[in-house]
Parts: sequence; C-alpha cells; structure tokens
Amino acid sequence: MADPHVLAELAAHYQVMPPVRAMQLGIDGFEDGILRLSAPLAPNVNDKGCAFGGSLASLMTLAGWGRVWLGVQAHGLEADIYVADSHLRYLAPVYGELRASAMFAPESDWARFLACLRSRGRARIDIVARIDLPDGSPAATFTGNFAALTRSEAAQSG
Amino acid sequence: MADPHVLAELAAHYQVMPPVRAMQLGIDGFEDGILRLSAPLAPNVNDKGCAFGGSLASLMTLAGWGRVWLGVQAHGLEADIYVADSHLRYLAPVYGELRASAMFAPESDWARFLACLRSRGRARIDIVARIDLPDGSPAATFTGNFAALTRSEAAQSG
Repeated sequence: MADPHVLAELAAHYQVMPPVRAMQLGIDGFEDGILRLSAPLAPNVNDKGCAFGGSLASLMTLAGWGRVWLGVQAHGLEADIYVADSHLRYLAPVYGELRASAMFAPESDWARFLACLRSRGRARIDIVARIDLPDGSPAATFTGNFAALTRSEAAQSG
Repeated sequence: MADPHVLAELAAHYQVMPPVRAMQLGIDGFEDGILRLSAPLAPNVNDKGCAFGGSLASLMTLAGWGRVWLGVQAHGLEADIYVADSHLRYLAPVYGELRASAMFAPESDWARFLACLRSRGRARIDIVARIDLPDGSPAATFTGNFAALTRSEAAQSG
C-alpha cells in the first residue's frame, strides 16, 4: 500500500497538466506494484458514445508514467520521466468509466534500471498497462518503454 | 484539395467529442491525400512545459481516423471507423503548436479496403501519421490499423 502523501504528490503532478484535468483523471490506488487510475466517461466520450481511443491511450500512458514515477520516488531519486514508445491494442469499446492499471513488464529489470539511473543519470524501463471492462476482460492493452533522466543529468545536458 | 463542406462535416464529427474540444483541435487542410490537424500547446502541455504524450497520441489517432473517414465519405459510403491498434514513437519534445499529418500507409491497399467494405460491410486499413517540429523533422511517429464497419452491417451485428 502506498503512502497517501506519495499518491497526493503523484496526483499533484497529474493535475498540473491541463489535458489531464480535462480528462478528470483520478488515482484509485497503488498496491502490489500496480497503479490504478480512472476517469469518467463523459469528458472522454467519442462520437459513438463510448470512450475515445485517445483518452484510453492517454490514461494507459499516464498510468505507466505514474508507475515509473512511484518507483523512482521510492528510491529517493529525482528524475524527469518520458514515454519513449508504445504499442496499443483496442479490443472492445468502453461504455462506462475508464479504468486503467499499469505495472513493470514481467521481463523488465528494475534493479538494472535503478543502477543505470544512479550511475549514468538515465535509464529505460518497459511497462505494461491495460484498460479493463467491468467483467475484468481487457478493453485495451499497452506496452511501452519509458525513459528517466535525473535532474542533475538534465541540467548538465541542457 | 478537399471540398470545404466535407472538411466542415469532419470538423463537426471531431467537435462532438468533449476530449477533442478540450484539445482545441483544428483542421489545417487535406491535400494530396494528407490530412493535417493542429492544436495549441496550452491545453495540451505537460508538467515539463512541452506537449503531453497523450495529446500527441490523440492528435495522430484523430488524424488517422479522419483520413479514413475522408476516404470512405468520398466513395459515398457510411461507416463507423475505429482505431484497432497503433504503435507510437516519441522522438523529440514539442514546445509549440502540435501539428499532425496522416495518410494511408505506403503498403496499404485502398482499392481492396473499399471492395471489402462494400462486399462484407467491414474492412481494415493501415495509416501512418506523424507530429512535425517547425523544422520539419519528426517529433513523434504513428503507425496504426483502423477498422471500418458500414452502418447496415453495424445494425445487423447489433
């Protein structure tokens, strides 16, 4: 279970972004390494009355970004985190609340990521995320690669 | 050059979607098979002062969706269009207006798509899209597959 102060800090990071405020994103929890986000349908609906693909993409990207942020933050590091690439599959329309979850990809090596980030100031990690329907089946899936760059490294590069 | 009435109809399709209104999406033109969309930075900015990855993903997805819609519409067909999957690469941050362009993928077979849509009521097509920096170099690239389902087919399926 995550420290509520940490989730409040993550929420503040999200809410500083106008497109995220427009989505009305909420943090549902962080437990067992899985970050859960949600957003109501109304601000994210398309012309067919179901969730807009771009909103599903954004929610899964934000969940992945948040999962990396939580991992970096837990180790006392400060880094800017960017999505580098992603692959999305849209499997079924979503006619209700958008619910996303994200975690490290099974094959990802978190220890190596941390070692790289500490020694070289930059590192990359794979994330898997999904949008679930109410019955638990996937409405959309996401695999993505995120890059982290420590603040001192960013300053030296810039 | 597209009929301005057709682009106005496409704009109406976009603007019915609350998340697209929130992005402040505009249609810049449709020429030589390339649909161009744009959106200002302010409603699409992230915590680092550049364009939010989800907004870049949304804009490229919307450009691809619109390119398929324009093709279907030009042949007098009525179809619902869905993004089925997409692969995105984020190459450089965007610190100004977001500008996306989309076209049929070079290897895509539009004649076959139309024949399938007419005979079977459903068809799929590949789209490539990108976000350009002011100097013309790519800030993000998108390859995606879109599905179209004719209205009569949708009614029979539903």
